[in-house]
Amino acid sequence: MAPTQFRPETLLRKYRIKHRLTRNLLSECFGTFLLLFIGTSIIAQLILSREKLNTWIQINIGWGLAITFSVYAVHKLSGGHLNPAISLVMWTFGHLKFFEFILYSIVQVIGAFIGAWATYLEINIFSLFSYAINEFDGGTRTAFGPNGTANIFATYPAEYLTVFGAYIDQIVGTGFLAFFVAAITDKRNKIPGWTHPMFFGFLVLLIGTCFGMNIGYPLNPARDFGPRIFTYFIYGSQVFTHPYSTWFLVPIIAPMVGAVSFAWAYHLFLGMHIPNEEYDVVHQNELEDREAIMIKK
Amino acid sequence: MAPTQFRPETLLRKYRIKHRLTRNLLSECFGTFLLLFIGTSIIAQLILSREKLNTWIQINIGWGLAITFSVYAVHKLSGGHLNPAISLVMWTFGHLKFFEFILYSIVQVIGAFIGAWATYLEINIFSLFSYAINEFDGGTRTAFGPNGTANIFATYPAEYLTVFGAYIDQIVGTGFLAFFVAAITDKRNKIPGWTHPMFFGFLVLLIGTCFGMNIGYPLNPARDFGPRIFTYFIYGSQVFTHPYSTWFLVPIIAPMVGAVSFAWAYHLFLGMHIPNEEYDVVHQNELEDREAIMIKK
Amino acid sequence: MAPTQFRPETLLRKYRIKHRLTRNLLSECFGTFLLLFIGTSIIAQLILSREKLNTWIQINIGWGLAITFSVYAVHKLSGGHLNPAISLVMWTFGHLKFFEFILYSIVQVIGAFIGAWATYLEINIFSLFSYAINEFDGGTRTAFGPNGTANIFATYPAEYLTVFGAYIDQIVGTGFLAFFVAAITDKRNKIPGWTHPMFFGFLVLLIGTCFGMNIGYPLNPARDFGPRIFTYFIYGSQVFTHPYSTWFLVPIIAPMVGAVSFAWAYHLFLGMHIPNEEYDVVHQNELEDREAIMIKK
Amino acid sequence: MAPTQFRPETLLRKYRIKHRLTRNLLSECFGTFLLLFIGTSIIAQLILSREKLNTWIQINIGWGLAITFSVYAVHKLSGGHLNPAISLVMWTFGHLKFFEFILYSIVQVIGAFIGAWATYLEINIFSLFSYAINEFDGGTRTAFGPNGTANIFATYPAEYLTVFGAYIDQIVGTGFLAFFVAAITDKRNKIPGWTHPMFFGFLVLLIGTCFGMNIGYPLNPARDFGPRIFTYFIYGSQVFTHPYSTWFLVPIIAPMVGAVSFAWAYHLFLGMHIPNEEYDVVHQNELEDREAIMIKK
Repeated sequence: MAPTQFRPETLLRKYRIKHRLTRNLLSECFGTFLLLFIGTSIIAQLILSREKLNTWIQINIGWGLAITFSVYAVHKLSGGHLNPAISLVMWTFGHLKFFEFILYSIVQVIGAFIGAWATYLEINIFSLFSYAINEFDGGTRTAFGPNGTANIFATYPAEYLTVFGAYIDQIVGTGFLAFFVAAITDKRNKIPGWTHPMFFGFLVLLIGTCFGMNIGYPLNPARDFGPRIFTYFIYGSQVFTHPYSTWFLVPIIAPMVGAVSFAWAYHLFLGMHIPNEEYDVVHQNELEDREAIMIKK
Repeated sequence: MAPTQFRPETLLRKYRIKHRLTRNLLSECFGTFLLLFIGTSIIAQLILSREKLNTWIQINIGWGLAITFSVYAVHKLSGGHLNPAISLVMWTFGHLKFFEFILYSIVQVIGAFIGAWATYLEINIFSLFSYAINEFDGGTRTAFGPNGTANIFATYPAEYLTVFGAYIDQIVGTGFLAFFVAAITDKRNKIPGWTHPMFFGFLVLLIGTCFGMNIGYPLNPARDFGPRIFTYFIYGSQVFTHPYSTWFLVPIIAPMVGAVSFAWAYHLFLGMHIPNEEYDVVHQNELEDREAIMIKK
Repeated sequence: MAPTQFRPETLLRKYRIKHRLTRNLLSECFGTFLLLFIGTSIIAQLILSREKLNTWIQINIGWGLAITFSVYAVHKLSGGHLNPAISLVMWTFGHLKFFEFILYSIVQVIGAFIGAWATYLEINIFSLFSYAINEFDGGTRTAFGPNGTANIFATYPAEYLTVFGAYIDQIVGTGFLAFFVAAITDKRNKIPGWTHPMFFGFLVLLIGTCFGMNIGYPLNPARDFGPRIFTYFIYGSQVFTHPYSTWFLVPIIAPMVGAVSFAWAYHLFLGMHIPNEEYDVVHQNELEDREAIMIKK
Repeated sequence: MAPTQFRPETLLRKYRIKHRLTRNLLSECFGTFLLLFIGTSIIAQLILSREKLNTWIQINIGWGLAITFSVYAVHKLSGGHLNPAISLVMWTFGHLKFFEFILYSIVQVIGAFIGAWATYLEINIFSLFSYAINEFDGGTRTAFGPNGTANIFATYPAEYLTVFGAYIDQIVGTGFLAFFVAAITDKRNKIPGWTHPMFFGFLVLLIGTCFGMNIGYPLNPARDFGPRIFTYFIYGSQVFTHPYSTWFLVPIIAPMVGAVSFAWAYHLFLGMHIPNEEYDVVHQNELEDREAIMIKK
């Protein structure tokens, strides 16, 4: 039997982080790290096996489950946004302060950076897939083209896509993500809390089947920008300028715009009209409690 | 922190639609819009990528999840029929008045029309898939043939199908949908309410594997007729007359017939025989309450 | 609004079948009909589209969901065995009398017969798939060979399979089905009742991935024998004698043997050792109640 | 009706194993047997049908469901580790004594050995797949090469993989398994107990999509070593020395290292910081109760 002082429960009482924001930033950073480490490994398995061991259905299912489990791991700490666009929505809903949104976004990008790094270490330095990647690209890391591996980490648009089209794609795709996240988590819909991360996974699977064609559904500024910064150290500045100099801004700006507008559309068109008198009363108290708490702070 | 007056909860108290029917019509229209926007995007990804990025299993899973999430978004308002055939069943069950059924059907068609429009805007005007669709059809929108895109929006029968066969296909397909919807939602079966939209999605996935071959399982007059009207403005009147002049009536009439007859078959053969004395008592009260409410109105 | 006397709730009070056994036989017959109508349609879509519209993963998922929904529709009546092998297990567990097991089996075979008939009508007489099937086999119904359609309805062994091998295959396959059905429904495992039909579907999906290769996992005497009798009227006596004269007995006898022995193995090796004193007490009362009920009858 | 003395409930009271450790060892042995019998049958169906009847998505889904159902069958007895790496984690968490961990590991290897034997009997001696396997390899069992069948039972690395890479692959893969098992089962996350085996299945499905490429995700010393010992009696000592003499140690050592370090990482970075005062109190009592129980023993 492990000595008592090393059991998780004992540690729990001793070293718990008492400061809520610190705890939440750790949680968001770690959760986004998990999501990207797993998620980019899924894409690596598709690309390095040249679509033999993974096909698109595994990408769809795999990313969905990566979201599900990453959110389960952290949802009782920070709620598990793992995405600056979702954090921004939460600010507009009054669940975060603006400087908290900024800090959440920064640590999410850091987590994503480390997640991409971990996958790269695996497939390269620590040679997990090392011969695999050397066999694939002949030993020279190239970013693009038939042996390119940059798209394991960050996303790049299909050749036919216009700039404006790319913005619309990410506004709509991330918009639907935020729309249904708002619906699932709306207490008036009475969907049990323990199922939410599961449904978020199904949701990402769904979006992969309908908005995955043009860009590969990043849907998340941190998921795209963190790994892109990492790949800068591998492939150079082309990762920011390919296929055009402002491309890297699209998966940052468009998800923000889409998420906020669609999440509010949910509340304006649907959520706020749900008749539930009992809720109003409870909610009224909750609002007052929260205001009371903020005054105390 | 967002100013208090813009939080969803605050709006909730101020601008809520008090009139039940107006609220429900908004809900049905919006829900059917969601279903069609997502659903036709799934088919677009199949057709425009020439079955590379989506295969039939993604169509099956994608449409199932599109139903699941569209119904979750609206189920606490109108119940989430999103389908005139289901609304008709609800009328025969005494949950809707006849003029409500008519209004539900009209707004469902309108929602479906707008959903198809949104997908078309995406793939065309707003050029989300623009080069994609131009690459696909050479820049000329054609309705049918190898580069035809009309079947992204509305459904057309397989060449071998007779008129009578088409009616049977949709009667049986939509019949099973309504049969199991009646079973899942039957309170005597004690399936928790929060799981119903999830099971509706599995149900559509199932029907895709067994009745999807001939027509592509529309199963829903609004899902087919709304987009068909929209495509009239793009491809002309051939969308109504291809492959024969009365084709467009099949996915309107047959689902109505199938849904009502199969849903009642559930109650006659199975549901009404479930032994549950406790239910009878509760139900008796409920019936009397409802009658009391209707008198008050 | 539908006149009150035609609402399901009103019918419920008037025409409910009061005799428990009659009700359960109707339920088992109807449920097996549903399972076979849907299940053989899934296989028809695989075979008639020459594996274009359905592939093996759709067969696996489709049959799983066919079980799930067929059992949900009837589980509050007869429990939803839909399978003589499962009914036999329930007899050995003391939940059915022997003559009830016999009657259950007979109506399950009748339901399966009608389900196969319904699919045949669809694809042939009512011409749902009519040109499809004519295109497929040139207008002549042949049982076996490249254009054979008998295997839409009943199962036939792979060429390499010995008689003894076929028995083992079905004993083990149906054995695992019954083993895990016993585990899932064992109250000591505390899996909520409303999830059982869902897990039965996952279970059939699992068995399809590991014991589907040789015969196509009938796992159910009624599922195989009912449709085989039906096909006798279409293709003649060869459906009983192909590939050898006693083949048709394998999917009848082997599932019975496998189900009983594996379900009891669950209780002997695992279930009966679950420590749950509270259960014993409850169970004791339940046993006494049941004996009291049987005396009253 | 079966005589009362043979019903499962009656046996329950008479022959229940009272000794907790004996009961748990039976449970772990039997559960690992189930997992391997089913799991190696899934791979057999892939290999012997030359990827026609099963493709990689079925392997991913099938192994996931094999875990789910094997754990459901035994989780109320021993908890359902079925994996020495998980049992080791439970020792470090203080839920097992060290000699119990050793005994658990031994019976898990025995269970896995028997499970592989059962599959081999099926496909060979009892000739379930007999002509299948003879057709496949021409009647001579060969371990490796295009007609090799050793990889049905134990795992072998892809050719390009270095020794160090293989260790990292299994440390990370099993690490993620243990990390999320720790998260799912952490009571502070409030995920209902009856869903845990279901989520473990999804988890194995996920790991198959991201860490399945190099070795085939054994993730479990018993799952690999038990069948490897069995195949020693079929193919000779090459199963231990192919492709190099210490290969067989990798799927034993690496999962142990990965599981413990990642499971603790969950508690250190996430779990222990979850704010839940109420839990602390309950937990305190639980700890004291457990210590009281151990003193009594």
